[in-house]
Order: sequence, then C-alpha cells, then structure tokens
Amino acid sequence: MNVREDEGLRPGYPLKLNSYDLGVDVELADAIMRIRFEHPNVKALEITSGKDRIFCSGANIYMLGSSSHAFKVNFCKYTNETRLYLEEMSAESGIQSLAALNGTASGGGYELAIACDEIVLTEDGSSAVSLPEAPLLGVLPGTGGLTRLVDKRKIRRDLADVFSSLAEGVRGKRAVEWNLVDEAPAKAKFDEAVKRRALAMVARSKRKAMKAIAWTPLEAKRSETGVEYKYVTLALEKAARTATITVRAPSGSEPQNAEELAKAGVNAWAVRAFRELDDALLELRFNQLSIGVVALKTSGDASAVLAVDKMLAANKEDGLVREVMLHMKRVLKRLDITSKSFFALVEPGSCFVGSLLELALASDRVYMLDADGVSLQVSPMNAGPFPMANGLTRLQSRFLREPERVSRVLEMQGPIGTQDSVKAGLVTFAPDDIDWEDEVRIAFEERASMSPDAMTGMEASLRFGGPETLETKIFGRLSAWQNWIFQRPNAVGERGALTLYGKPERAEFDWRRT
Amino acid sequence: MNVREDEGLRPGYPLKLNSYDLGVDVELADAIMRIRFEHPNVKALEITSGKDRIFCSGANIYMLGSSSHAFKVNFCKYTNETRLYLEEMSAESGIQSLAALNGTASGGGYELAIACDEIVLTEDGSSAVSLPEAPLLGVLPGTGGLTRLVDKRKIRRDLADVFSSLAEGVRGKRAVEWNLVDEAPAKAKFDEAVKRRALAMVARSKRKAMKAIAWTPLEAKRSETGVEYKYVTLALEKAARTATITVRAPSGSEPQNAEELAKAGVNAWAVRAFRELDDALLELRFNQLSIGVVALKTSGDASAVLAVDKMLAANKEDGLVREVMLHMKRVLKRLDITSKSFFALVEPGSCFVGSLLELALASDRVYMLDADGVSLQVSPMNAGPFPMANGLTRLQSRFLREPERVSRVLEMQGPIGTQDSVKAGLVTFAPDDIDWEDEVRIAFEERASMSPDAMTGMEASLRFGGPETLETKIFGRLSAWQNWIFQRPNAVGERGALTLYGKPERAEFDWRRT
Repeated sequence: MNVREDEGLRPGYPLKLNSYDLGVDVELADAIMRIRFEHPNVKALEITSGKDRIFCSGANIYMLGSSSHAFKVNFCKYTNETRLYLEEMSAESGIQSLAALNGTASGGGYELAIACDEIVLTEDGSSAVSLPEAPLLGVLPGTGGLTRLVDKRKIRRDLADVFSSLAEGVRGKRAVEWNLVDEAPAKAKFDEAVKRRALAMVARSKRKAMKAIAWTPLEAKRSETGVEYKYVTLALEKAARTATITVRAPSGSEPQNAEELAKAGVNAWAVRAFRELDDALLELRFNQLSIGVVALKTSGDASAVLAVDKMLAANKEDGLVREVMLHMKRVLKRLDITSKSFFALVEPGSCFVGSLLELALASDRVYMLDADGVSLQVSPMNAGPFPMANGLTRLQSRFLREPERVSRVLEMQGPIGTQDSVKAGLVTFAPDDIDWEDEVRIAFEERASMSPDAMTGMEASLRFGGPETLETKIFGRLSAWQNWIFQRPNAVGERGALTLYGKPERAEFDWRRT
Repeated sequence: MNVREDEGLRPGYPLKLNSYDLGVDVELADAIMRIRFEHPNVKALEITSGKDRIFCSGANIYMLGSSSHAFKVNFCKYTNETRLYLEEMSAESGIQSLAALNGTASGGGYELAIACDEIVLTEDGSSAVSLPEAPLLGVLPGTGGLTRLVDKRKIRRDLADVFSSLAEGVRGKRAVEWNLVDEAPAKAKFDEAVKRRALAMVARSKRKAMKAIAWTPLEAKRSETGVEYKYVTLALEKAARTATITVRAPSGSEPQNAEELAKAGVNAWAVRAFRELDDALLELRFNQLSIGVVALKTSGDASAVLAVDKMLAANKEDGLVREVMLHMKRVLKRLDITSKSFFALVEPGSCFVGSLLELALASDRVYMLDADGVSLQVSPMNAGPFPMANGLTRLQSRFLREPERVSRVLEMQGPIGTQDSVKAGLVTFAPDDIDWEDEVRIAFEERASMSPDAMTGMEASLRFGGPETLETKIFGRLSAWQNWIFQRPNAVGERGALTLYGKPERAEFDWRRT
C-alpha cells in the first residue's frame, strides 16, 4: 500500500480512495487520524494498492479463513469502526471522501467504497463493484456492507438481494441505475469525472483551516502483567480473568486555549489519556481474549479534569479542539462496543467527573463506596459532545424511562456524594466500608464465572436501548449474524466455503436452514 | 395446562395470565386466536399450570438442551411471534393482558409476563421474577426478554444487567423500584390488586362487542410431497431443495359484508387462505429444514381477490373484519421472517393483486414474465392494513430511497402490465417467453446451491431496511445473538451450560471472549 500526499491543495479537498484491500484498514485508520491531525490544509490522501482486484487476489481471505473465531470477529468490528470514521469525518469534520474506483472493488473494497460520500466506477467492460462474500465464501459482507446497501444507499431490497448473491458483481450503467455507484464514466473520462466531483465536494465543504499536531507513536511499557502508559494503566489479573484500567487525571499544567493545545499536541491530556485508553481497549480486544471483566478506575485531581473539560467547551468552535473532542468520542464509542464486562469502581481519590464520568456511564455497572468524600461530578462534556452509536448521550441512554432525570443531573453543581448519586440514578450499588471489599470481589468472581458468550450477547443487547441507527444496526444486527455464520460449519468447517476458498474442492453444506 | 373461561364478564375484560410454562406457547397462541374470534363478549381467559416455578422445573429446558439448533431457533422465533401477538392484541384489538404472578415467573415465564400490559407479583418472601438464562444456561433470554427490559419497560441498563445475571431474580419492592413489575402486593392483598387492575383495564378498554366465528381445525392433506389445502398448495421438490407455495383466489361466492363474514367464519377466503398459508409456512419452518428456496405463486380470478379486499376495506371499522385483517397481517409478517429464500413468479393466470400482491412484495425477488396479459394490481390492502415489523408497509419498505413512488404505485388503476411494473419498481427481472424457463431455473438452482446460513443472515439484513422497532430488534438483534450462542460449545457443547443443566456436573467454558 502506498500512501501519497499531494501538496498544495485547498482546505476541504476530499479524501480519494482507489480500489482497496480488506487488509488496509489499520493503516487507513492511521492515515485518517493523521490527515485529521497533521494537515492544517487537509491535503488529499490517495491510497492505491497497485492491484485491480484485491479482495479476491490477496492473502486476506486466507487470513479470515485461517484465523480464530475471536480474531475474525474483532477484525470485523475494527474495520467497521474504521469505515464509520470515514462517515463521521464527512458529517462532523467537513472532509468528504470520494471512492474513485478504477478497477473492481470487491467485498471489503466495496464496503469501504459505500462508506464514502460518493462513488465513481470506471466503465471499461470489466470493472465492477461486488459483494461476493455470500456466494463465494458462505459468509456476509459484514463490515457494514449489507446494512449500508439498504439503509445508507437505500437500494431496493430485491436488487440488493441480487447484488449480494452475484459473485461477479454489477458494472457500469446498471450499477448507476441500482444506485450502487453514483457515476460510471468511460475509462477516458474517468479522471475528469473524479476531478469534477472532487472539486464540487471542495466547493461544498465547510472545512476551515486548523492548527495541526504531530501524531507521534504512543509510549507504552508492555509486559506480561499489563501495559503502562503515562495516564493509563492496564493491569491484567490473568488467573482471575479480570483486568483493571485506571485513567489518571492531568498532573501538570494543561493547555488553556486552542493555541496551547496545538503546541502541546499529543501530549495534551485530552489527547494522550484517550489515545492511551484506546490502545488499552484494543490490547484487551485483540490480545487478551481470556479477560472477561474489567474494572474501570480513575484517580487524581478531579478539578484538573474539569479544567480540561472547561477549556474544551469554551473553545469548541476551534477546529483542532473539535477534532480532539471527536477523538474522545470515538474512544468512548470503542468502549461501548468492547465485548468485556465493565464495572466502574468509584472510590476515595477517584475522579469520575465530566469526560471521565463517561467511563462510568459506559460501564455495565457502577459500584460507588458509600463514604464521605467519594463523589461524581458532571461537566458540559456529559451534555452532548460524546454521543453513543444510537445518537443519544450516555445520560440520555441511561434514563430512557425518565428523560427528565437527564437535565436534573446536568444541573447538579459541584461534587455529588454517594447517596445523592444513588438517588440521581447514577449508581448501581453503593456498599459501605464494611461490605465494599466482599461485594466487589464477589461481583467480579461471579461475572467472570459466567459463559463469556452469554455475557457478550447480553451486553450487546442491553447497552443500546432506544433508537437504532445505521451504526447500531451494523454492530447489533449485521455483526451478530456474521458472528453466528463465522461459527457455522458451512463457513469454517473442514468443508466450509471460507475454509476451502481458493482450493480446487467445492464446499459442502449442511442444507438445513434454521 | 388448564384453560378456563369465566363466563359473564364485560367486553374488554383483560386476559389474565398466571405463571407460565415455556412450553405453553403453541396452546397460548391458539387460545389467543380463539378468544379473538370466538367470544362476542371477550371473556376472561385464565391459564394456570398448577406449578409455582415452571421454567426451572419442567421438561422444557431439557427440550431446549437436547433439540437441534434449527429447532431451538425456530422454537424461539415462534414464541417471539406469540408474545408479540399479546402486544398487538392490546394495541390493535383493545384486549389488554395482565400478568398476575402468584409465584415465581422465571425465564420464558417472565418473558411472557413482560409481553403483557401490566405485571402484578405477589410479595410473599419467595416469589420473584427472573431471567436466569445467562447465569444458569449460558444462553440469552431470547424470546424478547432482553429487548423488552430496556426498550419496553425501559429499565436502566445497569439494573437490567444485574437482573439478567442474577439466577434467583428480584422480589417485591425492589422489583417495583426497578420497574420489573408494576405492583407487588402482600399475598393477602394479591387478589384484590389483580381485580382492581383488571377492572381499571376494562374501564380503559375501547373493545366493542363483535360477531364471533368458530376457529375449527384446518383441513389439510399431508404427504411426502407436500400439503394440499383448499386455497393453498405446498409442493416440495426435496431433491432440488426447493418448494412451491401456490395461493388460489376465491372460487365461489364470498361474504359481501361483516354479517356474512361472521356466518362464513373460517371458510371465508380471507380467513381460510391465510390460515392455510400460515400453516404452510410453519410446515416449512419446522418440518422442511432442507428446503432453501420457495417459489411463491398465485392463481385464479384476480377480480375475486379484489372483491374480497374491497369488502374488507369497506367494513374495516367492524370488529370481526378488523380481526380478520389483523390475522392476514400476522401471516404476512410470519412470511417476512421465515428463513427461506422467497422468489415470486408472476405468470399468466396468476393473481398477485391487492392482499396477494403483498406476497410478491414480501419476496426476496419478483420474476415477471414479459408477455401480454400478465399483470399485477394494487388495492387498498397495499396502503396500510398490513404493515411489516418495522412499521412500514411493504411498498414503503421497498421505496425507502424514492418514497414518492409509493403513492404513484397506489394511484395506478387496473392491471399493471409487465413493462409498467418494471418501470414502477415492482419487479426484479422480467424475462420474455424465450428466456423465462432457463432464467428462472438457473436462479433457483443458484440460490439453492448457496450456503443456507449466509442466505439466512443476508435475508435477515436486507428485508428490514429503514426504521427499527422493538419487534425488529427482537428478530434482528436479539435472535441473531441467540442463534450465535445456540451454536457455541459454551452452551451446547458436551460440557456446555445448556447441555449440563440439571446434572451434577458444572459447565466448562472456553473463556476467550470475542
């Protein structure tokens, strides 16, 4: 993969993507992060693979076919998050993306294309778009493909059915008619069409120039017992199948305005602590499969967290501040859909306030010690900047039955003690000093003893009450079906389609439908 | 199970349910059907089991544990449909239901209770409500349980988490505080509370007295090659893994008004043809697992179908006519979520008009012969009476991207020929005489050759674009997770929790979370 940056383009120049590889997502995510943080004038980013039909020629299907169930599921979840970043970038940051398909975009490639704002496909008699997963591999186009067909591009359901079961895909004029692509110019007019659309996107874009920060690699000490970052500690208790994530408040001086934020760059707490948390979550997802229950803790000076929140809220119109908050939002959403049980522990010295209060609100349960000096506190960060995938804030999601509680909580000034937190509905259990240790210990032991599959399905069902969006449909509906299929012999058995892909043998199916 | 009917109660008297058995659903569904059709004064129906704690004492868990994956999935889908009938009955027919729990309602029992309008639980120091599926069986409360917790009763997500992982459940005051039940009177006051709530329901009910019809058993000739009913034929082509359902138009005189409809009873075409179709669908689901693709055909006099539709539309305010249309709606919804591929075949002599046009609109694809005299036609039945689970009509679901097409189609008077049907967006493919046979044959062969799991997941994802409802969440999200878990060794493996339930051995889990 070759990432090329064209210099000298105007702010708002759209992201242009050529045919892709299922495997580029990690790098693409990084490229998106970079372009969002590094380029004051938002340059064009072109990702080319040098191959025309990658999904069916690369090693990635074999990777999918040979990797563990858990890796497959995690890989798809991660690539889904990445595709959603493209759409968020368009909706929230004014950077649109244009899929310029000068060859066949197949499977994951087309799924990435339909995450873009517009799609241009060359008409050369062979280039096509296709989702061959079902007919060729016996699995679903599960990184958003099916959902975006009917819910984003709103393709008629019978045409979506034909398209999704047609290995060779759809070309040119028919692809336009079915709304699979927006335009299918002849090969000779392809570049002109791409340029025309790109310039129109630029003209529409409200993207403003912004200060940039360098997105340097994370510093992390990784060991058998966990990962140590500056503001985050991930401590693994492998024998108990539990872990603890502790997020610390800022300890020194933090940027007071947007300019200082740009200067502090990745070392600003608002960036660094959340990047570290993100990394810890991905470490848990990909490398610590046996960990079932995670304690979420915070420690340090609550007023330092509130000061950061205040600065962010005061400067929310600034481009970089906005990007930093969007990053925090994405990390919190990553937490929402991580398949581990999260129990927040609110203790003396903790700082679940404002942006860190979101960690408690994202947890499956909140345990708060009933003692003087233990408190929670809200900030403007709890009132809107960090919506969940369902479009609601975590407070709104919490109080679906009593929505009036949301504003009541948001109006509470200063620290909220344990009893008031219980009354406000922010806390699940509030044991006192005598019971705390036993109650928490038993809760973790019990949770860790339960079927990890049942917990995954249960949490996925309980965390997202209320409205559904394209995003929750992808994670809740499409991913759930894909998880099921990823486990079925028809896909991954010895004679399954995914297992046998690329081999001369034909898959053998158990024909019984459920 | 004992079904007892109390005589002499007022219209609108609510359905009262005691503790339930997971296994009652078939009978319960039948009981609901009976009460809706047979009782002009809508009598009370009391279902008692004679046992206090059934879910954990009966044979049903063992049934779940020992039955095939397909049966488990189909069983849960069917019980989900039954629970939804209770809610439809309240919303559409003015018959509310009251779960009067004079013992512990556990698992499927509590899932049935939360499908009711109100729940009263006796406070006797031991009676509780509980969803012990996850902690005890390693599966989900998948017949709507988890979804109704957070989406219907809007229980706070952390409390829902605690409740769903607590085998012994929640009792009395706490159950009321968490909104798991509406009232928890002491044992001595239980009957009075139930009566008070029942009478209040009666006072609120807008249910009117209506003509009743006797709900006699279906007549069906079942053989190895299919099922023959009066208006429906299910023909199985087992070697090809395909089947054909043909629905025939009325052939004699049909009721001209509500009174005649009451007299014709189950022999009226609008009742009988749809009851037969319902039975054919359940036959396919439960007994014909290897059938993958179903051709949907109609035959007979289109004007006879349109005449029935016209009578229904003209008398839609009549109680019985309304119930008949609700029945048709439920059958069509059963078709929407049946895990087979449906291809409608529109040929000379077919009558895809009005209520039968819905069969084509519910299909994954529509093939229409391009020849003179082949046509479709709309009626008022396509404009609202038969909404899908997502709350939209099938025409609205079809035209999510171009909603203006809905009214354009509804305004088309008289038969719509093939080319006009294509232009209107009603048809997927329209081969002419020369191509028809080959194209249809190949389409069926191709579809039947694909992974049945991939088709199930694909169809579940493509059929329900647009808005999500509690109902689509249950079938799309909760059921998908449950299907996955029902396949996992942690539930159904030799050492899985479902397999070992009731045995002295403890389940052994693969602790890796995905």
